Order: sequence, then C-alpha cells, then structure tokens
Amino acid sequence: MESWVDVVSGKEVKTRQVDKMHQSALTIHEFQAFTEACLASPLYKKAVAEFNLPEGFVVTIDPWPYGGDAEIVPRYTQGLCFAKDARSGNEDSNHYPYPLPIIPVLDTFSKEIVRIDRLATGGREDGLAYGTHKKNVLDHCSPGEYVPELLSQLLRTDVKPLNVIQPEGPSFQVDGNLIEWQKWRFRVGFNPREGATLHDVRYDGRSVLYRLSLSEMTVPYGDPRPPFHRKQAFDFGDAGAGRAANNLALGCDCLGVIKYFDAVLQEPDGTASVSKNVVCLHEQDNGIGWKHTNFRTQRAVVTRLRELVVQFIITLANYEYIFAYKLDQAGGISIETRATGIVSVVNIDPGKTSPWGNVVSSGALAQNHQHLFCIRIDPAIDGQNNTVVTEESLPMPISKKFNPYGSGYEVKQTVIKNSQFFDASPQTNLTVKMTNPSKMNPVSGRSVSYKFIPTPSQLILADPESIMTKRAQFAQHHVWVTKYKDGEFWAGGEFTNQSKKEVDGVADAVARNENVENDDVVVWNTFGLTHNPRVEDWPVMPVEIHQIHLRPADFFTANPAIDVPGFKNNASVLADEALKSCCESGDVQQAPASHLQGTGPDFDPKSKL
Amino acid sequence: MESWVDVVSGKEVKTRQVDKMHQSALTIHEFQAFTEACLASPLYKKAVAEFNLPEGFVVTIDPWPYGGDAEIVPRYTQGLCFAKDARSGNEDSNHYPYPLPIIPVLDTFSKEIVRIDRLATGGREDGLAYGTHKKNVLDHCSPGEYVPELLSQLLRTDVKPLNVIQPEGPSFQVDGNLIEWQKWRFRVGFNPREGATLHDVRYDGRSVLYRLSLSEMTVPYGDPRPPFHRKQAFDFGDAGAGRAANNLALGCDCLGVIKYFDAVLQEPDGTASVSKNVVCLHEQDNGIGWKHTNFRTQRAVVTRLRELVVQFIITLANYEYIFAYKLDQAGGISIETRATGIVSVVNIDPGKTSPWGNVVSSGALAQNHQHLFCIRIDPAIDGQNNTVVTEESLPMPISKKFNPYGSGYEVKQTVIKNSQFFDASPQTNLTVKMTNPSKMNPVSGRSVSYKFIPTPSQLILADPESIMTKRAQFAQHHVWVTKYKDGEFWAGGEFTNQSKKEVDGVADAVARNENVENDDVVVWNTFGLTHNPRVEDWPVMPVEIHQIHLRPADFFTANPAIDVPGFKNNASVLADEALKSCCESGDVQQAPASHLQGTGPDFDPKSKL
Repeated sequence: MESWVDVVSGKEVKTRQVDKMHQSALTIHEFQAFTEACLASPLYKKAVAEFNLPEGFVVTIDPWPYGGDAEIVPRYTQGLCFAKDARSGNEDSNHYPYPLPIIPVLDTFSKEIVRIDRLATGGREDGLAYGTHKKNVLDHCSPGEYVPELLSQLLRTDVKPLNVIQPEGPSFQVDGNLIEWQKWRFRVGFNPREGATLHDVRYDGRSVLYRLSLSEMTVPYGDPRPPFHRKQAFDFGDAGAGRAANNLALGCDCLGVIKYFDAVLQEPDGTASVSKNVVCLHEQDNGIGWKHTNFRTQRAVVTRLRELVVQFIITLANYEYIFAYKLDQAGGISIETRATGIVSVVNIDPGKTSPWGNVVSSGALAQNHQHLFCIRIDPAIDGQNNTVVTEESLPMPISKKFNPYGSGYEVKQTVIKNSQFFDASPQTNLTVKMTNPSKMNPVSGRSVSYKFIPTPSQLILADPESIMTKRAQFAQHHVWVTKYKDGEFWAGGEFTNQSKKEVDGVADAVARNENVENDDVVVWNTFGLTHNPRVEDWPVMPVEIHQIHLRPADFFTANPAIDVPGFKNNASVLADEALKSCCESGDVQQAPASHLQGTGPDFDPKSKL
Repeated sequence: MESWVDVVSGKEVKTRQVDKMHQSALTIHEFQAFTEACLASPLYKKAVAEFNLPEGFVVTIDPWPYGGDAEIVPRYTQGLCFAKDARSGNEDSNHYPYPLPIIPVLDTFSKEIVRIDRLATGGREDGLAYGTHKKNVLDHCSPGEYVPELLSQLLRTDVKPLNVIQPEGPSFQVDGNLIEWQKWRFRVGFNPREGATLHDVRYDGRSVLYRLSLSEMTVPYGDPRPPFHRKQAFDFGDAGAGRAANNLALGCDCLGVIKYFDAVLQEPDGTASVSKNVVCLHEQDNGIGWKHTNFRTQRAVVTRLRELVVQFIITLANYEYIFAYKLDQAGGISIETRATGIVSVVNIDPGKTSPWGNVVSSGALAQNHQHLFCIRIDPAIDGQNNTVVTEESLPMPISKKFNPYGSGYEVKQTVIKNSQFFDASPQTNLTVKMTNPSKMNPVSGRSVSYKFIPTPSQLILADPESIMTKRAQFAQHHVWVTKYKDGEFWAGGEFTNQSKKEVDGVADAVARNENVENDDVVVWNTFGLTHNPRVEDWPVMPVEIHQIHLRPADFFTANPAIDVPGFKNNASVLADEALKSCCESGDVQQAPASHLQGTGPDFDPKSKL
C-alpha cells in the first residue's frame, strides 16, 4: 500500500498527546476507525465468515484511498484485508503474507461499510474471474517475517561496525531553519503535504533556486482485474508525505553527526502540534570528488566529495520512501528517492502464476506497478527571470566543407518560449538548462545556468483514456515548463483523493500557454520506476534508488570545489594492520600480503570448461 | 588526453627500479622519448619558433595514440603540445591552459618527427580554417592551477574531518587473491589491459558470474576540423588500463580500513615487475538498505546498506577514471565509473567561441567528446549454461475481456536465441535477464536470474561511415550477446592502436550468429557520457558518475539481506551536542534547537515578487 486517506476529524484527535501526534498516529486512527466499522458491519462479518481462517489468525485491515472510478460516489475508503498469525503474541508479526480476497468499502463520513468487493485469486488461466479460491484461502500461505526475533534464520554475525566520526563536529551551522554549509545557504521548510522543502538556495551568496520540493507521486497498479483499477495512490495529495513522515532516531537512519528538525503541523481542528525528528541533516562522504595525477612528477591531488543531506522518510502502511536532497561542494544538488518497505500483495490460488505480478511468497502475488514521482524546481539562477533551454547533441552529415571525416557532432539549443511539456531524449543527450539570459559567464561567453539530464524512465503505462492516466497527467511527460503562479505547487492538482481527472495540475498550468522566456519559470520533472517485483523484494525490499542531479553549467568561472583541501585522512588504516591487531586478540585469522599475479592478458582461477 | 601509445621497448626500460616500474613510468618514458625526438627535429624546431612564447615558458608534450585515418601509415604517435610557466619553479604548475596549435607526428620506430600538423584556432566564423592565430599565441591564455600552493584563492577552512572507523577491523577476509565478505566469495585478478577483474563470483556458495571486467572504452572527439578526427583514444586497447593504474595511497583514495593489492606485470623484455597498490578493497556505507515501520506499533526495523568496493584508478596524461566494482549485502553488484582529471583543450583565438566545444579558460577550448565504455559480463547463473531474456513492460489496449478499465499492462519476454545486439529501451522498461533455464525459483516458478537495466545513454555520434565509428562498432549498440569463445575479451578487438576498423571485436563475435540459448553466453554492455564541457570542469573536473546495477531476480527465495542486523549505531551523535562540546572549547557558535514552522500548505522565507 502506498497511501492512506485524509485525516478523519473526530474527538480522539484532540486527546492525543502532542509529542506523539505525528508518529503515524493518523494512520493508526484510520486503522482503528476502519476496523471498528468492519466489526459493526454484517456485510463484512458475512464475507469473512466465508473463509476458514486458520486457528489463531486475526484479520488486519490497511485502509487505502478509494482510487478513481467512473461512477460518482460519496467519499469512500477501501480496506485491504490480511490475517495476522497472533499465536506468537508478537505484535510485529508480519500480516502481509496472508492476504484475504475481499475489500470492504467504507463510507468515510457515515462510517458504514457499504459494499464488499471480491478479488480474483486466479492465475494466468483464469482471466478476470474471481471466486476460484477455496474456503481455506490462507492454508497455502507461509510466514514472511522481518523482525529479527521472528526470523527463521539467524542474523549475520560478520558485519563489523562501521562508524562515521566527526571529531571536530559537523561542518554545517544551523540557526532556526537557516542552514549554512560549504558556501551553501538555504532554509528548510516542512509541510504536511510535501514533507521537507528547500528555499532560497544560494551558493556563495548567489541565488540558485527559489524553492525545491517533491510535488507529487502516483502509484498505479498494472493488474487489470477489477477492482484493482482503483489501486492507485497519490502519496502526497491523498496521504500527505509530511503527515506520513517517520520520527527518526539517532544511529538508525544516518551515520555521523546528525541534526534533527521537528515540525509544527496543524490538527484538523486547527490546533498546532509537534512532530519530532521528521527531518535529519548530516554530512556524508561520497568517494573521490576530483583527482589528477601529474604523470611527470607522480604527484596526485585528490579531494573527497562531501555531501550535505536533508532527509525524510515516509511510511504508507506497507511501503516506505526515503527522500533526500543532497548538496555537494561542487555546486551540485541531487534529489534522491529510495523505495523500500513491503510490496503490496494479493491472494493467489495454490500453484498458479500470474501475468500481473510475481508470486513472492506462497499464496501472495506481488502485483506489477509503477512509482511515478514529480519534482518541482523553481529556479532563480542569479535572479528570478530565467529561460529554459534544451540542448541536444546531434550527428552531422559528412561534408567536405564542414565535416570531412564524419567525426563531428553539433550541439543544438532550443529556447522554450511558451509553457510546454517535452520528454527525455537520451538518444540526443537532451539536457535541460535553466539559464539567466541576462548574465553571461565571463569565461565562456554563455548564459549562466544550472542543468539536469531528465531520466528517460518509463511513463505511465495505463491507457491514456483510463481514469488512472486522466488523474495523473503529470505522469505522461518527463519535463513540464510553466510560468510561476502563486500557490501552484501540486503536479497532480490540489485534490487527488477520488479525483476523476487531474484538475489545476501541471497539465493545466502548461495549457495556459504563457510566456516562460526570461520570466519567472517553474520546471517540473517526472521520473519513475516500473516495479515488477522480484522474489528478492520479499518480505521487505532492498532499496531501489533513483537520483536526479542539478549541476552548474557555466554558472561559475571554474570548478567551485577547486578550493577543497586534499588533506590525507589520518584515520584510515591498512587492513593488514587491522587484521593483525585483531589477530593478536585471537579473533580473526591474519590475511597474508597479496600479489595479484595477473601476468598474462587474462587470469582465471579455474579453466573454462 | 585519454590515452597514450603502447610501450616502446628500449634500453631504459630494463634499468628502471622494479618497485617504481608502474608508477606511470611507461608514460614518462614515452614522454621523454617523444620530447627527445622533437628536440632533434628541424621540422619541430621551426614550427615552435613561429610562436612568440612568453618569457619563462617551456614546451611540454603529451604523447597520444595516432588515432585512425584512411591512409596507410607506419606506426605513428602524435604529440599534443602545451607550454608550461616555469617561472614558479613548481614542477606541478598546470601546462594545459597553454595549448599550442601544432601536433608533431613521430614515427614510433625510427623515432623521427615526420610531420607537423597545424591546428585550427578559430571560432564559429572560421569553419575548418587554420592559421587564424597570431604569433603571440599564448598571450591571451591564463593560469589554471590546481595544486594548493599555486591556487589564487585560499583553501576552504571549514571542511571538518569525517572519519570512517572500523574498531573491530573489516568484515572481509583476504587470502591471496581470494576475497570473502558477507556470503560473497570471489577472486580479484589484474592484468595490464583491463586492470582489476572479478572471477568466479559466488554468493552463499552459488555461482553468479564466471568473470566480470571492463573490456574497452573509446573517447572520440566531436570537433570536425582535421586532424582532430584522429583524436580518438581506446584507453584499454591502446594504453592499457592496468599499466595506467595509479599507485594508491592510504587516506587519499578511500576512507576506513583498506586492503591494497600489488600487481605483478611483465616488461617488454619478458621480465616481471611489481606495481604497488594498484587495487584497493574497502567497505563503505551506502545509506539505508531496507526499512519498514509497523505503523500499528511504531516499531521500525532499519538496516544499513554495506558495500564492498574493489577500486582502481587510471591516469591517462590529462585525464583520470575511477573504476569500482561494488558488491552489496542484497546480492547486488554495481559497476561504477567516475570521470575526472583535466579535460582536453586546444587553443582558440581571443574573443572567439566555437560550436565544437566550450571556452573553459581564456584561449583554451575544451572540445566536445564522448566517453563510451563497454563492460563484459560472463554470467554463470547457477552454472555456465544460461539464456538471456529481455523483459519489456508494455501498454495493453482497453478491452472488456482483458483490460476493462485500461489499468493493466503486460510484461513481454523475448528469449535471445542467437548471438545479437539490441539497444536500451526505457520507454518499454527493457530489462536484460541472465537466466538459468534449468533452475526454477521454488517460490515464483520462474527461472533463476540476474538482471540489469541497460542505461539508454547516447551512442557514438560520429558518422557510421567514419573511421571513428568503424573502429568502435561496440559503441553503436547498448547490449551484445555472444557465445563464449576462449580469449575473446576485447569489445573493440585486440589491436585498437591505429586500427582502421574493429577486428574480432564484439560485432564480429555477434556476426558468427551462434546459438546463445541455454549455452555459455557472454553479455556486453555499452554505456557512455556525451561530455560537452562546462566551465566548472576546469581546471580539474568534478567527478561524473555512472553506475550499472546487476541484481538478483528470483535467484534467491527472499531478500538476501533480510538477515542483516539492524543494530543501532552507537557512534552517531546529535549535532546539537557536537556543536555544544565544540562551543565549550570556544570554537563554534551553538545552534539553537529548531522547529520548522511549516504550518501552512507552503512556507517561504520571503514573499515571491
């Protein structure tokens, strides 16, 4: 599940303790309200009674947004039902391996279960049919535990500690929400919908960005069997990434010296509440930053690539996303997304496989789906009047006059004059430059700019005429260029929950067909991940990482990191010595000094068959 | 410059000290031989005398491979000429900002300068013409220093130390060239052409790869003005990545506990010599590995993503590449390339700009170019008989019977039966699976496999009929699937230096049209970087990073990292406390505790105009 519904206002909201307020409490409240409605519902009770649940199992329901459908309905919530093996008495036993093939639908206001949707459990051979399962619907399912005390295997014992130590403290300074680090200066904001945002981002006093944020994401599921066409989450618009943010803990989510930020959010009744540690700030090392060895003197100058990371993590029932803004010493800003958590599964009959997903655990079909993100970049490259220019590298025909040996290629620039969308084009190395046409780089004579190469990831696969796609126009193209408008922050529109189509989202903003040349321009970048699950994604998936890089292009007059000192790190040690000192305490066998005897063009440890 | 010519055998080679042997000594020898030939050449002396070199400047020559040309010539070497400001007496003063518009051509065997090629120095308005420069060809050039003592600015003083400490030593064990770490077991090889290679890579005893290597790369320059059509390096075939490998130093190229490997290489006369510290091995932390929070209990289980890095770095005169194989705890293997060093520049007249590059320093035009890499993957997925399958995610038409709401998408598999090439296809999310068709995953019922998504980076831009492209057929497609053949390691063919076309490279291997289904198969992946330089790339460029990820896909029966312990890192500290303790010693101002007061849907520090 990648989303839950909007907060349901009610009495209990006010009584929660302020410092616990945003520990996913909204979800807990939803969960409780949904479960209570089910327990009071004859429809639900009858449906569950049709299954022979194994002894000691209890039904566990994750409320989800209702998604989109053609029919007009009141405000609904749907519940994905699982059963939890309660016999261990461990509250953290994983219930997702035991999916039940029903979805109760809740009228969010009347708090009544209005309908029970039945789910197909068939395979390749069953088409859209449902009802192929037996009463003993969970008997072929098996555990999928991830908390260490319930694992069927022992934890690894050979992961030696790796610590990040900053003996002189961090290189950053924090004053309220103002952060200064390595010539960078910016403010970090936080709101219930977007989570952490960056504002007024400057390098060495020069303006780079007015605002940087994650605007929206949608997760459409590719299983065509109804009612899975309503399995589409908008994790920012429906759920609120800020409200879903984890309360981070020292030593768990980052290494080194960590600054945490709390957020002040508002309750449905208007009162303020604090959510602790929702954003963390720390430095990290990302390998070599730049290096050159003078081969004549053998002198190497090598610097590290230090990054400052602003991170927040959201949990949406089964799923998590880790979002990070990373600033580096060379004037670069990367936006990173990591997808992890538990993939959404539905019940599948014993022995069957499906074209709509992968059986990741006996009886559990992880459905194919997409994650489509949209980043909103409000540039202010040396000021707010900017022009977006695309740059493509194109082959040139052989010509005696211009390209006699066919070795040349040309770089074509296209000025984006009116608001529009376009797609990534790796075959032409399409690069998006956000330029200030009024400021020239004194060295190159070109406009100062920041650039990025849009990732050509797959766009939304649902049919253009489907509700899924109509609700997420932003997921149809990689880059959108619009004229700034107050309050226009949401790529998929302000109201995504149960939307029929994207309204006042980025497509409508482009449709205004406004001037964006030398103007206050906003750039939106959509990228994504088509996620056809692997067995290895179960029970909790290893992170899938995506990054987009904003980099200066003729903004500076040289490598801005040329003044980073290349000091030798005195804390690094030779493994031979480390192993030796361990040996002396009798722990580890000493490794001998090694020569790689690769004396031929190839060296294989065993001969090929 | 991204390459140099093959070793010239001669008397001096034998007299070099063994432990200094491969400190780029081959290049130094080349450099010396080339310079001596120039100093003895009337042609060269006459050409240099045509320029009024500034007082105190000396000519400095980087030997390059001759590249490719239509005419048949003996074995030649070309020299890129610069002038060094010797007045400081600092041998590491950067000479590249002062390019001279001549290329002396050396007969590599007779050691005579046979010709002086003249270079164009014009701009947009001058077409292919050369001779537009004045005699005072360097007067408008300016310094571009990078060694700290010559910088015109002070080094940053606010980069606080960041140390990686492994108090219990590394998690790996080394025995000769056998490395064991976190269920991984493999051997590392090293040879003069490819540098470090991985062999017999196994996870938990199961075979994954037979061999993994960087096979070739080519760097064609896109400036169509002759003789720049001969500016094309093959850094593995021409130069030898292993022979160009840096001798790494503790605390400079990695952090933490480092194991270095020496290599035993051979001299032109057949004697063996040692090159010290050419490969390093260390662990690093790459953020969160997997995380899930049970929203009902608020219990979070979070693990780190630990990686084992096998790294080597090569210097090719002006340029460097950092290559790394990274193995992780979730069964993944990433191959990373970082491009850094000094971009290749040629002289450009004062005040001019060029369509063929960017003026990165007064008088210095950094020419547009591409870096095209090819990785050779010899899989052994649970054995040597493997089948390559491509998997594409495709839209489905709306249909009452199969896709009533248009929400579905389908996954199409294509078995590669005969040796062939194909290209990346992000619009269909094309994924390459290396499968063992004889082994089924017991959970999913699908063949065990490892997969990767080929990066859709731009392929070679030179005309298909150009010498550049004919020499580098491997750079025309992203993926090549061939049947294993003994000794077939080189994507661009064995002999690339002065080649007229790729011979016995990957294109010829594919052309054999052999069976590759359930057979001993090899997969070659070409990716690249179209590098149109920025001013920020000068004088030493910040790293440009590319990664390709090999990941298990139904190879295991669950997330192989599920047994990684999620221990809390006790060495992490709160910034507030770190800053406080610094404050106590009077160093740093204490940062106040921060709340982010993002109470509305948006929060900006200043109002928008």
